Amino acid sequence: MSGPARVGLLGCGNVGSALARLIDEHADVIAARAGVGIEIARVAVRDVKKSRDVRVPPDRFTGDPLDLVRDPDIDVIVEMMGGVDPARELITEALKSGKSVVTANKELIARHGPDLFATAAASGVDLLFEASVAGGIPLMRPLRESLAGDRIRRVMGIVNGTTNFILTRMSDDHMSFEDALADAQRLGYAEPDPSADVQGDDAAAKAAIIATIAFGARVNVDDVYREGITSVSRDDIESAAILGYAVKLLAVAEELEGGISVRVHPAMIPVHHPLASVRDAFNAVFIEGEAVGELMLYGRGAGGGPTASALSGDLIDAVKNRVSGAKGATIGELVERPIRAIDDSESQFYLLMEVADRPGVLGAIANEFGEHSVSIKSMEQRGMGEDARLVFVTHRARESALRATLEALRGVETVHRVGSVLRVLGDED
Amino acid sequence: MSGPARVGLLGCGNVGSALARLIDEHADVIAARAGVGIEIARVAVRDVKKSRDVRVPPDRFTGDPLDLVRDPDIDVIVEMMGGVDPARELITEALKSGKSVVTANKELIARHGPDLFATAAASGVDLLFEASVAGGIPLMRPLRESLAGDRIRRVMGIVNGTTNFILTRMSDDHMSFEDALADAQRLGYAEPDPSADVQGDDAAAKAAIIATIAFGARVNVDDVYREGITSVSRDDIESAAILGYAVKLLAVAEELEGGISVRVHPAMIPVHHPLASVRDAFNAVFIEGEAVGELMLYGRGAGGGPTASALSGDLIDAVKNRVSGAKGATIGELVERPIRAIDDSESQFYLLMEVADRPGVLGAIANEFGEHSVSIKSMEQRGMGEDARLVFVTHRARESALRATLEALRGVETVHRVGSVLRVLGDED
Repeated sequence: MSGPARVGLLGCGNVGSALARLIDEHADVIAARAGVGIEIARVAVRDVKKSRDVRVPPDRFTGDPLDLVRDPDIDVIVEMMGGVDPARELITEALKSGKSVVTANKELIARHGPDLFATAAASGVDLLFEASVAGGIPLMRPLRESLAGDRIRRVMGIVNGTTNFILTRMSDDHMSFEDALADAQRLGYAEPDPSADVQGDDAAAKAAIIATIAFGARVNVDDVYREGITSVSRDDIESAAILGYAVKLLAVAEELEGGISVRVHPAMIPVHHPLASVRDAFNAVFIEGEAVGELMLYGRGAGGGPTASALSGDLIDAVKNRVSGAKGATIGELVERPIRAIDDSESQFYLLMEVADRPGVLGAIANEFGEHSVSIKSMEQRGMGEDARLVFVTHRARESALRATLEALRGVETVHRVGSVLRVLGDED
Repeated sequence: MSGPARVGLLGCGNVGSALARLIDEHADVIAARAGVGIEIARVAVRDVKKSRDVRVPPDRFTGDPLDLVRDPDIDVIVEMMGGVDPARELITEALKSGKSVVTANKELIARHGPDLFATAAASGVDLLFEASVAGGIPLMRPLRESLAGDRIRRVMGIVNGTTNFILTRMSDDHMSFEDALADAQRLGYAEPDPSADVQGDDAAAKAAIIATIAFGARVNVDDVYREGITSVSRDDIESAAILGYAVKLLAVAEELEGGISVRVHPAMIPVHHPLASVRDAFNAVFIEGEAVGELMLYGRGAGGGPTASALSGDLIDAVKNRVSGAKGATIGELVERPIRAIDDSESQFYLLMEVADRPGVLGAIANEFGEHSVSIKSMEQRGMGEDARLVFVTHRARESALRATLEALRGVETVHRVGSVLRVLGDED
């Protein structure tokens, strides 16, 4: 490659503008690190007339993304459009024509990553996607490179800033879910339609990508079991706090006997666990490796600056590889690994039950736990008489065993109601 | 390169054995990621007769490290001997003869890194040293690659597990420094001679490496200002806790007007700051970047497994580069940047003074602060009469101004004694 690397940007909103400014302001440092300068040769946007706070000449803007993808003079495409279509076709065509691609598109990678990785490998170019999970936090590169010689057992991530902000407000300011959500919307942390965040879909896409890279396995977002935070109440959070736990929405990818588990759900985490102190809209990913032990990577999971930072690291990498003539960094062969149903996963459980306040109640309940091989770690009674409730924390148990226990408990006459049930992670496991 | 990559290990103690086991147990995964298999071709040890828990045939062991360095069939050297000599000569010779080198040697990199980087670059081979700072935590790769397009403002690290363990015991179990140190020694976290840890020398070497990579500047360990934790008392820690701070030994590298500051000293950190919850022998590095905002990388900073994990990531990288024929990853040109004296650095300060308990005392003291342009953020009196003490926290001030204030306060008749002075970081800055 002679002269500067020519980069095409697909999209120039919040993230694209931040990236363009970064490339402009840090041109010297970037050139030193990439081996050549980086020039923004073309930018595809929906509205070419819109004024943007970037130093790119107006004649480089186009309304047609194919202009970039088919331009033989462009070396690297940075995709920041989001969504599966038309990003998928554009990236595929770019890769096939020998361009490297950097993307922030979690939905696309979570749905079609394996096919795209294969296309990139076949063309000997890079497809890099650090920005697609946990924004500015270096995660893909540590998983792919730093831990390449280790064996990852489990990854637990707080990868959705919106829900973490909501849970933090519910916990610290004793807000209801509705009030905390409204607050998040007011501050721009939540969309007007918050369902992708609060129902766990956004986190599920990230869980799929994390599992794919951590285990070298084909995991599609549709394989990911998910529960959101809409059923988490202020009472749950306060009850968890009394027991020394924080409630977080976790994306979990772990090795199980005979397969892997990939799931998103709220969980109680001991307050001394590093994930418990991740507050507000911050993200963090906790990794357990065979040799390395426990690692946590923490930072801002969204926003123009952090996402642009991650994109620029990947962009420099892609340019450096083209300069040095290195073969594109490939993900390696992805294998098919059985993805176990949620019923096969294991954790501790927290249960709250409204019960009759009379002798023998605990015995009847304990018998049902015992019959289903779920052992009780702790129990405490809260309230008396009409308000009597029992709070249990179990030892580690299989999800299916817990479900069977719940079923049985509903048939116990002294159990008026089984209230909240929450998984507990990071404690005994 | 045809056939497996042939690796020579310099040293086979705790870390070397862990690495050998990792290479053995994860052979398939490593081969897939590196592009070829990795074979431990030779191992240099002090005592060839000693039995070791590794699956390497006895005839591959040698007592002479030059056997490896001069063996034309060896592709990559992993150095785990520690110390400057003879590691420096051995690595230099290996690099010059076209071998890539992976090292865990912080002392060597902190003292001679720039020369060694230049030697590696001239030979077109890799010199990788992820394991030299913060053990298993991915730090060098994120700084060099993930954040390559960003601009790093400041790095604050808890990079010495021994002192963090001692400070945690002093804080949580109200132990004295001496008792906590004895505990650390009993558990193997501290050496029989703990001076390199408790006086900050170990952290200073890591600070030098961090500053070199974060700022692309030549920083030698001798440039690093250091204060250890031997003068931190249980009272300081308890007083800090009352004000909502934890005391940590920090390695700090930051950009200042006209230069950089690189230093190691104890500091008070707000309890809500992510670094404050890093406990026991864990390490963590908090990075502030212009675009990325705040990042923290957390994990085990020492031990066979974590260090071997980091070495194996680098080893795979080095092998992959040889397979693909990529030019060795270079650090880039290091620049000379002025390293500012500690007097030029800025922070908030905590001060405890024993004073006469009578009207007008505060006025006299406040005047001295004011005359030296140090402004007071908070003050509280503790104790009465003979036991009267005043606790101050200042706003951000220059170290030189604070020193001049202290000097002046010693001349104030109602100030009986200026007790502890501690820097406060992560609060207003």
